[in-house]
Amino acid sequence: MMQRQLASKLVRFFNSAASSANTGAQYRSDMNNQGKQRTEAPKFITEEDINKRVINAEYAVRGTVPTRAGKIKQLLKEGSHNYPFNQLTECNIGNPQIFGQKPITFNRQVLSTILNPELVNSEVYSKDVRARAKYYLERMGSTTIGAYSDSAGHIFIRESIAKYIAKRDNHLIPPDVNDIILTDGASQGVQICLNVLISDSRDGIMIPIPQYPLYSASCTLVGASEVHYFLDEQKGWSCSVEELKKQHRDAKMHGINPKILVVINPGNPTGQVLSYDTIKQMIEFAYDHKMVIFADEVYQDNIYTPNKEFVSFKKVRSELPYPYNNIELFSFHSTSKGLLGECGLRGGYFEMCNIDSRVKEEIIKLRSMFLCSNTVGQCTTELMCNPPTLQNASAETVEQYNNERNALLESLKRRAQIVTESLNKMTNITCQEVEGAMYAFPSIKFGKKALAEAAKKKMEPDLFYCLNVLENTGIVLVPGSGFRQEENTYHFRITTLILGEDRLRESMEALKNYNEKFHKEYC
Amino acid sequence: MMQRQLASKLVRFFNSAASSANTGAQYRSDMNNQGKQRTEAPKFITEEDINKRVINAEYAVRGTVPTRAGKIKQLLKEGSHNYPFNQLTECNIGNPQIFGQKPITFNRQVLSTILNPELVNSEVYSKDVRARAKYYLERMGSTTIGAYSDSAGHIFIRESIAKYIAKRDNHLIPPDVNDIILTDGASQGVQICLNVLISDSRDGIMIPIPQYPLYSASCTLVGASEVHYFLDEQKGWSCSVEELKKQHRDAKMHGINPKILVVINPGNPTGQVLSYDTIKQMIEFAYDHKMVIFADEVYQDNIYTPNKEFVSFKKVRSELPYPYNNIELFSFHSTSKGLLGECGLRGGYFEMCNIDSRVKEEIIKLRSMFLCSNTVGQCTTELMCNPPTLQNASAETVEQYNNERNALLESLKRRAQIVTESLNKMTNITCQEVEGAMYAFPSIKFGKKALAEAAKKKMEPDLFYCLNVLENTGIVLVPGSGFRQEENTYHFRITTLILGEDRLRESMEALKNYNEKFHKEYC
Repeated sequence: MMQRQLASKLVRFFNSAASSANTGAQYRSDMNNQGKQRTEAPKFITEEDINKRVINAEYAVRGTVPTRAGKIKQLLKEGSHNYPFNQLTECNIGNPQIFGQKPITFNRQVLSTILNPELVNSEVYSKDVRARAKYYLERMGSTTIGAYSDSAGHIFIRESIAKYIAKRDNHLIPPDVNDIILTDGASQGVQICLNVLISDSRDGIMIPIPQYPLYSASCTLVGASEVHYFLDEQKGWSCSVEELKKQHRDAKMHGINPKILVVINPGNPTGQVLSYDTIKQMIEFAYDHKMVIFADEVYQDNIYTPNKEFVSFKKVRSELPYPYNNIELFSFHSTSKGLLGECGLRGGYFEMCNIDSRVKEEIIKLRSMFLCSNTVGQCTTELMCNPPTLQNASAETVEQYNNERNALLESLKRRAQIVTESLNKMTNITCQEVEGAMYAFPSIKFGKKALAEAAKKKMEPDLFYCLNVLENTGIVLVPGSGFRQEENTYHFRITTLILGEDRLRESMEALKNYNEKFHKEYC
Repeated sequence: MMQRQLASKLVRFFNSAASSANTGAQYRSDMNNQGKQRTEAPKFITEEDINKRVINAEYAVRGTVPTRAGKIKQLLKEGSHNYPFNQLTECNIGNPQIFGQKPITFNRQVLSTILNPELVNSEVYSKDVRARAKYYLERMGSTTIGAYSDSAGHIFIRESIAKYIAKRDNHLIPPDVNDIILTDGASQGVQICLNVLISDSRDGIMIPIPQYPLYSASCTLVGASEVHYFLDEQKGWSCSVEELKKQHRDAKMHGINPKILVVINPGNPTGQVLSYDTIKQMIEFAYDHKMVIFADEVYQDNIYTPNKEFVSFKKVRSELPYPYNNIELFSFHSTSKGLLGECGLRGGYFEMCNIDSRVKEEIIKLRSMFLCSNTVGQCTTELMCNPPTLQNASAETVEQYNNERNALLESLKRRAQIVTESLNKMTNITCQEVEGAMYAFPSIKFGKKALAEAAKKKMEPDLFYCLNVLENTGIVLVPGSGFRQEENTYHFRITTLILGEDRLRESMEALKNYNEKFHKEYC
């Protein structure tokens, strides 16, 4: 219970120190013993030298539970029979291809060709594939995929992204390519922008609770103050402007100046899809309070509810009257999610709307210090934004692409539904509808004995639960405390990505059975 | 002249503000005008909000001259005939494939296969290529190249790197795979480690002058103090322990505590290769002064002088008596340089020797916040560390690989020699032998008129020179001031990568002629 203040609405970065030290202690000693023992002189760099901001940054998605899972994976690999399962079910991270999700054929054939340009002149792949690869290779100029691009990414790819954005938002004029920066995934973009925009520990970043831990961790790293606004679970994790205003007021009272409003739409870990009207209100709120918006829109293609659609912050912004149509906006996208699921290739971009030219300059300079994002990821981003259509490919290619795309979207929808339904049938668990993204974030109620047992082990109850689930079923969940949650509520995040209906149903059954057992034991 | 203090031996990070503001002013106004003018409301995030550390970080490799070059490139593309050249010669960055350097065939065929695993079962590539691709795909488990790997990188790739290090250093026991972290290029590794190790502005980082600007920029970003130690140009850019001791003493007197000794071997921009004995002395110095070593060894395969060889800091360390064999060491490597030149693919790793387990833990946590390095870069790193040999491939594959490798090394050697010889024939220019890496860093003497003209334009004289070279020849150089240099000396960095003897000789001729003209004009 000692760490319940973690969930308090306003957490200054130095608060989190205690938490990471405690919850991680048990497994830390394991880790320390992994290195071989050798005769060693005293070390000059020790724990005391570590940047406190780094120590205080928590990143639960790869935290205590996944660390323990890594250990079990190793034991299973070494032939251990101590577990009632022979493989892990890694639901801790949105990693579609780990469950066997097939990448889009056209995309991979194009990438295969640009890595060996000789294939352009062979018959290995279709004309459409070779034409696309040739298009890339020609536009990279004298360089191949193996050369550095411009710091912001190849210009022809940024042009393509600009067209994609215009089309998505029903705009006639594509955005300026100088406002688009390619990145190795969305996380890198967020970190670059935060590094440039934050200069003072009184600078506040408003983040939704529950949140994707990148935001709290980045906030801590750059030394900003987190300002939490709570999503309303009972109303399908919706966001209200009253809550935003309340938290903003509280922050101001504590001497904090909120500069950035982070929005994740569709929600991670919560799966809700924001309505046009909510987005409009959020923009008005942000403008009226002199804030810029960070719109994490990496799940924009992952919409599962027939009566909801994705609307970008950019689109709503452009349809608002002056001055709201001038809100300063960063929008982040990625090739890791959507229908590509190309996490390993690390592609992505961000767009900057109405950002001061000096700020943009510094963002590009910081980006340039890592030279450029990887060029395979850049081309994957182009493929995401510019899929085969009848304008640029044959009917056959388009048909194959559409078939793969539609089947995948249907399958993602079905799996989201199965997971939600299964969770809602489990004892003490309730789960909101997964409208989009790739996760369910069910609420779980614990009995007094479970709470006491967790307290005894100096763990959050949901961490205690998730570790037990792991040891007993091999299913890797992330405790809700890693995402932050309302005080006295507990959750876990589970991806909806398990592929193959058999395996999915088996996993849900295993979770259901163990959950039953857990609640009986700790009732 | 107002900025000569930049070259002073001890530069606190806040010093650099003035310089970047001045030297960049001329081109900044150009940049500001690039964005289209629209009706805009006042902005909430302006220059005042920018993180001062980011503003103060200078990164000359992509600084004023390359920015101007980008502008000219665009003008040429739009058909401008205002220049006495029709293409740029981009010697500002070590980007081999931009000059048409061919990637290693075997490597690219393997990468082409893993991006489309169907090729494993086809006859498109040789048995050896398919076997290697299959090896990767199998070890990635159920996942393909499109899934996230472990935060530190795929374990089978780290095992391979461990074997490579052992072989390179004549060790029987490969390092612990947990001490190896894969990265998107070496720069990222340096930044991750600095972020973890630096916690106070009194923490000093000793960097060689001239240096690769990543180090001064990173130093500024993490808020550390730069402590410069000067390489001796007259002695072939060698490093003396007396100089290290002197600068360390001076730093201490200024209340700075040097924690990290950065060494770049082979040198960038200076091209020298450190001897076994110098490395030994540097390790002893670092240990005696309670420092850890950052060894930037990305050019370890780029050695051109017959009487020099690359010796790693790790190797020398292991052959020293206790306690020097326990020096804490980070060594950085990359796929961008060497004989691969795969800059765009962003591969690399760093090894940690005798690093405290808590420090390692935090490094891995920080790495995990960006999920993992891109998997194509990871496989490229494996290919670099584990080339085809008779133990793992057919004689034919090995022969082709060796032929390509040797031809490339010979060509790199020859080009380094041509550039050095050409430079030494130019008026007022002298250049040390390029023993390794990919750059020449000649010294240039300016007449009084040139110095006065530069001062009038509020520019460093070498920036003034490089901008003139650019406008008149299309050759993109980086002014020595970006790398820092001894007071009252001026240099520029030029890559030795121009491919095709004709183009190389033409470029050198163009530089020679313009240099002659410049010195006549500003004599």
